[in-house]
Parts: sequence; C-alpha cells; structure tokens
Amino acid sequence: MRQERIEELKQIYKDMLLDNVIPFWMKYSPDWENGGYYHYLDRDGSVLSTDKSVWIQGRGTWIFSRLYNVLEKRSEWLDMAKLGYDFLIKHCFDTDERMFFKVTNDGRPLRKRRYWFSETFAAIGCAEYAKASGDSNALEKADRIFDLIVKLYKNPGLREPKVYPQTRQTKSHSETMILIATAQVMREVKNDDSYNEIIDECISELFNSFVKYDEKALLENVGPNGEILDTLPEGRCINPGHAIETSWFLLSEGLYRNNHDLIKKALDILEWSLERGWDNEFGGLLYFTDLHGKPPEQMEWDMKLWWPHNEALYALLLAHHITGNEKYELWYEKVHKWTFEHFVDKEYGEWFGYLHRDGTVSLPIKGNVWKGPFHIPRFLLYSLKLLERMEGTK
Amino acid sequence: MRQERIEELKQIYKDMLLDNVIPFWMKYSPDWENGGYYHYLDRDGSVLSTDKSVWIQGRGTWIFSRLYNVLEKRSEWLDMAKLGYDFLIKHCFDTDERMFFKVTNDGRPLRKRRYWFSETFAAIGCAEYAKASGDSNALEKADRIFDLIVKLYKNPGLREPKVYPQTRQTKSHSETMILIATAQVMREVKNDDSYNEIIDECISELFNSFVKYDEKALLENVGPNGEILDTLPEGRCINPGHAIETSWFLLSEGLYRNNHDLIKKALDILEWSLERGWDNEFGGLLYFTDLHGKPPEQMEWDMKLWWPHNEALYALLLAHHITGNEKYELWYEKVHKWTFEHFVDKEYGEWFGYLHRDGTVSLPIKGNVWKGPFHIPRFLLYSLKLLERMEGTK
Repeated sequence: MRQERIEELKQIYKDMLLDNVIPFWMKYSPDWENGGYYHYLDRDGSVLSTDKSVWIQGRGTWIFSRLYNVLEKRSEWLDMAKLGYDFLIKHCFDTDERMFFKVTNDGRPLRKRRYWFSETFAAIGCAEYAKASGDSNALEKADRIFDLIVKLYKNPGLREPKVYPQTRQTKSHSETMILIATAQVMREVKNDDSYNEIIDECISELFNSFVKYDEKALLENVGPNGEILDTLPEGRCINPGHAIETSWFLLSEGLYRNNHDLIKKALDILEWSLERGWDNEFGGLLYFTDLHGKPPEQMEWDMKLWWPHNEALYALLLAHHITGNEKYELWYEKVHKWTFEHFVDKEYGEWFGYLHRDGTVSLPIKGNVWKGPFHIPRFLLYSLKLLERMEGTK
Repeated sequence: MRQERIEELKQIYKDMLLDNVIPFWMKYSPDWENGGYYHYLDRDGSVLSTDKSVWIQGRGTWIFSRLYNVLEKRSEWLDMAKLGYDFLIKHCFDTDERMFFKVTNDGRPLRKRRYWFSETFAAIGCAEYAKASGDSNALEKADRIFDLIVKLYKNPGLREPKVYPQTRQTKSHSETMILIATAQVMREVKNDDSYNEIIDECISELFNSFVKYDEKALLENVGPNGEILDTLPEGRCINPGHAIETSWFLLSEGLYRNNHDLIKKALDILEWSLERGWDNEFGGLLYFTDLHGKPPEQMEWDMKLWWPHNEALYALLLAHHITGNEKYELWYEKVHKWTFEHFVDKEYGEWFGYLHRDGTVSLPIKGNVWKGPFHIPRFLLYSLKLLERMEGTK
C-alpha cells in the first residue's frame, strides 16, 4: 500500500472514530441515573427501548477501556468504562455466577439464555477495565468469568440443550471462535502466555471440525465429530462475516506466535469467505449463504449488515500487511468503498446497521440488542493502530 | 361486486387451488416412507430440510381433511390427511401430553417449545380429520388437545416463562387469536355451540387488552392489564397481517352470531390494519410496523410475506360480502392485483413466500418451518366457498 494511502486512511479512520462514532455513543448511550448504557437507539440517538442487553454492557465497557489503554488517557473514556463495569457487577449476574441476557434499565433481570456470550463480553470488559483502572477486583472478576466460560465450553452437558441430545447433537462455530477472541484479550491484558493452551485447543477444534478444505468452507454448525449435516439448512449454513472475523483472530494469532502455517490457513478462510459472501450483483457481503448454493433458511439472508463489513476491512488490511500481497489490497479497497458509501449516516452520524440487498437502508436505527459501541469502533481502532505500524514498512 | 367478476374470481381461485397449489403439495410433500409431510421445499419442490415441523403436520392434516369435507370426497385427499394424522399421533406427543415443535423425518423429537401452537394446529387437524374419516379416536384426541390448550391459556403460570415474571409480565395477541380460530373449527366440526363461551371470553380479552381505539391499533403485546408498553419495541409492535387475520375470525363470528356490533368492531380492526400496513411506496403489506411510526425491532420488518396478503384478501372479500360497501371491494382489488402479480411462481407453481420491500423475490423457497400447505389453500378454499355464496346475492 502506498504511503499516501496509509496516511489518508489513518486520517479517515481517526476522524470516523474520534469525531463521529465515539462521540455518538458518548452522547446518547450513558445512563447516568441507573448506570450502564442505553443502546437501543434510533437514527438520531433517541432511545427506542429502555431495556439493556448484557452483551452491550460488556462490549461497551471493553471498548471504552481499550480506547483509554491504547489510544489516549482521556478521563471521560474511563468514566464511560466504569459506568458499564459497575452496572455489570451490580446487576448482570445471577446467583449461579451465570449472567443474564437482558435486564431493565434499572438492572432487574428480564432474560437469561443458555448461551454464554454475555459472559465472554463481560470477561473482556472486566479485564480491559482492570488494566485501565488498576482495579484488581475487576481482574479477579474477569478470571472467574473466564474460568466459567472454559468450563461451559468443555462441558456442553452443563447447559440445558436446545435440541434433544438423544436425537441430534451439533456443535457451533461461534463458541470456538469467541473463546479464541476472549482468550486473546485475557492474554494481552495479563501478559500471560498460559492462555496459549486453550487457544491451541480451539484452533485444533476449528480445523478438525468446522473448516472443510474440500468444500472451501468454514461451516457454522456441524455434527459432534465435525460431520457435515447437509440434509439440513443449519448444517449447510455459512455466515461469511463470522468466518471472516475468525480469519483475523487467526491472523493475529499467527502473527503473535510467528506461525506461518496458521497464517496460511487463516488466509484460506478469508479468501473462501469473501468469494462466497460477496454479492457480485449489488456489492457488499451477504449475511448468510448456503454451502451448496441453495436458499439459506434465514429470511434476512441477503441483507447487508454493518459488522461483516467491519470484520472484512480489518481482516483484509491485516492480510495485506502480513503478506504484502496486492490482491488483499484490491479486495480491501473494494470493500472499503462499498462500506463507506452505504453504511455511514452523513446526516446524524454513526452508521446504519441494516441495509437491503441493493444497499438502501432498511432499518435506520443506530443500535439494538446486537448493534452497540463494538464492531465499528473496534475495527476503526484496530485498523488505526495497524496503519500506524504500516507506516514506513513498505 | 359484479356477477361477472364473481364468476371470474371463482375460476381464478378454483384453478389456483385445484390445479396449482394443492397438486404441488400432493406431489412434493408426502413422506410415504415415514409418514407425515416434508414441507421445507425449494422452489422446484425438492427437499431443503428433512426435519418436520409439527405445526405443518397439523395444518396439512387440517387442509386435506377440510378439502375432503367441504369441496369433494376425493380419496387422495383423505389419504393425504391420514398420512399427517397418523404421524401426529405416533410421533408428535411428549409423555406429558404436550407436543413437540420439530421432529426428524422418522419422528424422533428435536425441539419442544413453551408455546402451544403445535397443539392448536393438531387440534384442528384431528377434529377435521375425524369428520372426514369418521374416526372417533381422532375426535377424542382433538377434544383432549383442546382441553389442554384452554388449560394452558387460562393458566399462563403452567409454562416456563421466557421473561422473569417478577420483573415483567406481558400478554400476547397471538394466543387469544389462535384460540378463537381453534374453537371455531371445533364448534363447526362438532356442531356444538358450547364453544361460544370460550370464544366470548377471548373476544372480551381481545377488546379489553389488545385493541386500542384511541390509537386505532391492535397491539401484539401488552401488559397484564392491557397496559401499552410504549417504551419497548415489542410493546409498540403491530403485525398488520396478524391483526387482519383476527379481523376475519371476528367477522365470521359476527356473521355466525348475527352480532352487528362485533362485525362493526372487526371492520375497524381491518381498516386500521390495512392503513397501517399497506406500503404506499411499493405496494403490498409490511410485515411489522410500529405504533408510533418508529423503526420496528425486526430486521425483516419491511419484507412482503405471502400470508398477510392471503388473510387480507379473505378478510376484504368477507367484509365486502357482509356490508356491500364498495370501499372493501376497492381495497380487495388492490390487494388482489399486487398479490397475484408478485407472489405466484409462474414457472414452478405454488407461491413465493418472501419478497423484498420492492416486491422482488428474496427467498425462492416454497416451504419452511412456517410456510406449508395452509395459508394459501385456506384463503383460496374459503374465498371460493364465499364467492359461491355471493353468486346471485347482489
């Protein structure tokens, strides 16, 4: 990549992060009365639901702590992080140490789910906040949550199954991928390579069970021994954004461990997933595709969501940085152009999250149970730091 | 409506029902090996998932029995009905008399849900099949299921709650509406007006809790005393297709009871819901809208689904038949035109179910867990019988 382009991108990302996306969430999400973040926000930032997603409380705590830790020691970022952290600790845990999925604005429990994603986002939130604040209780909490996650990951029988296990057992890519990402944050915060062990286990599981070289595919759901369940839509399901996200977790890991084989494999996943997910008719990444090109089961399959584009941009920038290969730069520029042309809300700031296949806006909201201050600022921040590293390297 | 138009519509509906929709399901859905129906079908009828939705088994049993009972004594329809009925009895009940939600093709249980919609469709399936076959066991089964449904409806505490009840209690329109429709089928099959009592109870509940005259809206979810939960997207949720479906259940009831006040109220719901749901930009009915015009929470909110259009057509034809008012005929012709232009698959037969907002096809499938031989043949059959009654009336 040319130096001028690196400079230009740095400026675009810095402006978008610090003058647009973060100020939007700083302005509209804090609930200074009850603690925690509002996140179900309309286009103009007004609150569409007063309920609070526990995922978003953990993710918000993480991003504001992270900004503080790696970008600048701004006290307002630490204040924002503390707002989420305190709410997590005070209101988001059940008596069995598992976490809720959704609570009211004043922290009364609404729903708890069998999945442990609330826990993974709380773990990274607490860990990163511990580093930012120096609060050892926060680190202790992160450790406890992480231990629980690993226990749940290794013992799927501890959770109430969704499908009768005597009839069918399946495994989901999302659990393996999120554990890799969570362990990477824990390792970095604690500067402790003992997390390599669980990361290695997950990477083996990923390639033994979910990655299918013959099919050039990373599958979302497989049988207990990695069997392809191709008589079922869920067994044929490919989520290109998810697969691409996994590819950059693996690229980072390959870089950290200096493992060229892992980098090579991660690049394979990235390329397959872009080829499978890119919409040649309208541009942008499809939300779901089918292994054999059949219609996916999700009725929203051809919508364009913000986060797969965030993941793809960072994965491609990292792939280009690691390899110097021009094909990743070309892909990067193509995805960058489509993303910045379609998702950015030029009137009210921040990004739209849900577009029709043709790129027009379907839902103008800025946040909901899934969209909050996470994918967009994470990719902007990570890309910015990477672009800084790329300066002068070519 | 002009006699020529009635004749023309009769022909269109008859051809669509008997030469297109029913033959499609007769050809592609029966599983003569294991019993029951495949229903997760691609555009050309090929099987996309071998799993079987219990909803669809009950609905299919009902429609084939119904065709046999009210249209013609075709043995192949009775055979089809028996295929579904036997599978329901053999494979779809748990030991607690509750039913499963999804089973494998050979009838092993996959999922059970807290909702009792599997039971309502099995009840109408068994009842209508009892009438078609003369099998008294089927009627007894229908009675037992119906009693269970009423018990569950009246005692929501018997089911595991989705949301912590100490934090928030809500009620859902769908339960009240489906119980009205189920009781109407039971009453007709058994020719027993004692079902009027539970129907009256549900109608009171509907108007006391879900229908808001000030807002001109039928809400999907309200508080325990009918409170509008307008700080929450689910509390502002309007499902125009659902509300319109309820309106024709009420129109039928008004007609059966000769209750003009009920008819008047049903027409209000129909009109509000059409006004709220009709997409003035692209035509067709939106899937979800918000009470206050905010963005709905469902990312598929502006898709055009087949079934709201089926419900609207029958509701409007019935409204026009009952009142003779031209406005319903004009609405009917508008909805008819859009529906037949966009949903009918002229190449492979049957109808598409999932269109983008602009009317282009999103998912080309013919069936899935929700779409099977139900809404389309039901509206065609009911409309055909109504058009027969309308002949010579004006």
